[in-house]
Amino acid sequence: MEEEKRKKLSMVVFSGDMDKLFAAFSIATGAAASNMDVTMFFTFWGLRALKKKARTGKSLSGRMLGWFYGGDINRATPSKMSFGGIGRWMFKRMMKAKNVALLPELRQTAIDLGVKLYGCQMSMEVMEIPREKMIDEVTQCVGVAFFIEQAQQSDVTLFI
Amino acid sequence: MEEEKRKKLSMVVFSGDMDKLFAAFSIATGAAASNMDVTMFFTFWGLRALKKKARTGKSLSGRMLGWFYGGDINRATPSKMSFGGIGRWMFKRMMKAKNVALLPELRQTAIDLGVKLYGCQMSMEVMEIPREKMIDEVTQCVGVAFFIEQAQQSDVTLFI
Amino acid sequence: MEEEKRKKLSMVVFSGDMDKLFAAFSIATGAAASNMDVTMFFTFWGLRALKKKARTGKSLSGRMLGWFYGGDINRATPSKMSFGGIGRWMFKRMMKAKNVALLPELRQTAIDLGVKLYGCQMSMEVMEIPREKMIDEVTQCVGVAFFIEQAQQSDVTLFI
Repeated sequence: MEEEKRKKLSMVVFSGDMDKLFAAFSIATGAAASNMDVTMFFTFWGLRALKKKARTGKSLSGRMLGWFYGGDINRATPSKMSFGGIGRWMFKRMMKAKNVALLPELRQTAIDLGVKLYGCQMSMEVMEIPREKMIDEVTQCVGVAFFIEQAQQSDVTLFI
Repeated sequence: MEEEKRKKLSMVVFSGDMDKLFAAFSIATGAAASNMDVTMFFTFWGLRALKKKARTGKSLSGRMLGWFYGGDINRATPSKMSFGGIGRWMFKRMMKAKNVALLPELRQTAIDLGVKLYGCQMSMEVMEIPREKMIDEVTQCVGVAFFIEQAQQSDVTLFI
Repeated sequence: MEEEKRKKLSMVVFSGDMDKLFAAFSIATGAAASNMDVTMFFTFWGLRALKKKARTGKSLSGRMLGWFYGGDINRATPSKMSFGGIGRWMFKRMMKAKNVALLPELRQTAIDLGVKLYGCQMSMEVMEIPREKMIDEVTQCVGVAFFIEQAQQSDVTLFI
């Protein structure tokens, strides 16, 4: 019954940009720290946030995608001023200078606070990212119907 | 009365990127299939999703916009790795390989499931896209007040 | 009691793009004009919408950021077809031709209608944008917990 009264937040994490992932995980951990029930549904580029540092892709297109958009959460670059990696370096530097947690730590905090991380099954298939190339902490790989169900029960919904 | 009990989802579709439109229509069809009442409000670049394959624009700026951002839903390119059209080709290939519906089919499914498609009147005026250059299935062209009204009654709201 | 019955809209404004800011302020003013209680929470690139025309940044990275992403709301460029400033000029021209309010006027209308503008404290610190470089109309500078609280009470939530 206590459980039923908890407010709920559901977000689609579509983006794999460093800055947007940072916003997504900040909101998620903030909400979880406020005792909200938090669901993150990672799709498309957002899947990078759940990946291990591993090669993906089987077909030519899949391997091309893995080549240009491979790596794990540490490879994420900002949506602006990427400058071929300089932007990432610059932001990490600025965050460290202010003692702000970087993405891997922020994701770990989310996990520790009970935030649920779901991978979008269809994107995983299209992008040829198998479950075993994703971190163990992924709660489940689900379809869009699952997200709809979660969103219907939510007090706050966001698409990032 | 049955009608009043249906859950409602409203989204602003601001983006005209292939991948984001794919996410928008996937969520919309998924929600409609779950018996939700779904409203899509297309604005700015998102208007491409409702356009016929036709030239638009009257003023110099309008024609420039039509030149660089013309065409219909098939012209949409992904937000990442566009590579001057190669990204679009690559994603279509990957989707077909997994038997995933492409954008025009997904839009048709949305229409068949009763999803309502609204065009933002102000964007249409600014971008010089007249009603007759849009597909017949557009439910209506409306202002922001209309979206606000729909959103207020919704259980799920998204900006894509 | 009257106050409690008002519907509420909360949005995160993450983007500093001209077109997305335009969408954000259009929705905000539209909602406020419909008697909704509107909260805008500006973070990351979105902070530009609250800045004065002033240099920011102290560290090397901070100054680099100020250099490449400085200026006020008038410096915002569209997310597509920026063309080194031509896109901004083109859109302003198209908007004026249709008598559509430009960003600074739209922001003023939002303020006049009682829309609350919050700056994200953590982004301000990381990006080295002090409070005094922001416009006086900023309601308050707050943390993510504040946004979560507002969002929980809202009928409509958006991430732009």
